[in-house]
Amino acid sequence: MTSAAPRRGRRPGAPDTRAAILAAARSLFAAHGFAGTSMRAVAAEAGVDAALVHHYFGSKDDLFIAALELPVDPRVVVRPVIEGGVDDAGEQLMRLFVSVWDDEHTRTPLLALVRGILDPGGAQLVQDGFLRMVLGPVGAGLGIDEPERRLPLVASQLVGLVVLRYVVGVEPLASMPAEDLVAVYAPTLQRYLTGPLP
Amino acid sequence: MTSAAPRRGRRPGAPDTRAAILAAARSLFAAHGFAGTSMRAVAAEAGVDAALVHHYFGSKDDLFIAALELPVDPRVVVRPVIEGGVDDAGEQLMRLFVSVWDDEHTRTPLLALVRGILDPGGAQLVQDGFLRMVLGPVGAGLGIDEPERRLPLVASQLVGLVVLRYVVGVEPLASMPAEDLVAVYAPTLQRYLTGPLP
Repeated sequence: MTSAAPRRGRRPGAPDTRAAILAAARSLFAAHGFAGTSMRAVAAEAGVDAALVHHYFGSKDDLFIAALELPVDPRVVVRPVIEGGVDDAGEQLMRLFVSVWDDEHTRTPLLALVRGILDPGGAQLVQDGFLRMVLGPVGAGLGIDEPERRLPLVASQLVGLVVLRYVVGVEPLASMPAEDLVAVYAPTLQRYLTGPLP
Repeated sequence: MTSAAPRRGRRPGAPDTRAAILAAARSLFAAHGFAGTSMRAVAAEAGVDAALVHHYFGSKDDLFIAALELPVDPRVVVRPVIEGGVDDAGEQLMRLFVSVWDDEHTRTPLLALVRGILDPGGAQLVQDGFLRMVLGPVGAGLGIDEPERRLPLVASQLVGLVVLRYVVGVEPLASMPAEDLVAVYAPTLQRYLTGPLP
């Protein structure tokens, strides 16, 4: 005999409204990207007042992070990279990358996102999710020059490492200790962030 | 009124036997990888004599390349990288990479392959298709030390660049001139091929 467990841990407030706003946000971000989606449009799609969207989710950045179901707030976790200063940024960024991806609780939801990278919406995932939300604040906080040229270079190395180490599992990358990863990749990231550009 | 066009340009010999061998090879390579697939097993799966597989396809490498439908023979196109010598290998490898991927005739079939990289068979595609068939001969021809540690590093950068430039189309990478790509990425590849390892 089984009995239905009572629902627990539900957020207070109006969960259906929250869910409706999130569903609308996911749909519009997927269709039009971050820049092409306004809070007002999300509110209209969800059938609620725009003030309610701000009330529940704060800024458009907050709503985007909630819609992606990111396991960490990138604006918070990148702080040590910025505080470490520009000359140490390659190493600090590499340490952050490994700490987020080697932790199963953050890796699992990120892997689900990354598996969509080759789908038609992949450009927005990389452009808005990774470059705008994660690397953008790093570049701005460090004050690097030409971030719009440099940050995609950083992304090209980190995306390849995600694919080989965490998705495909190519050895010895898949089981390489964190310190070795930092030693190998930090100089690459540092050169992309502050080295000469063609 | 339409009329059926006559079939033309068909290979001489026994096309059904060739097709049966290729189908068997694709099935077994996908299931067991390159190392786990013998020419004898392909012949048995295709219901032909093993000598016939050698007759049609030569070596197991040849059969694998035919099964992948690679638009170029990697053992041929990597020769200039090897002939350029180890000190110039990062730049030559980057030039080869861009020339193959910027040519629509080679890019289109390669893109079809790359789109399978996140699927369950992706590990074999990277391990056998890219590391064993393309980068392996480069490492062996150049005589670099610890190729099994170095070549996956090279792969991690090139796979990321393929995803951002050719699959996802992130700017300014997607429209960056070939010479700029070489200037940015050749030093990275060179360090992975010959630089210090942790």
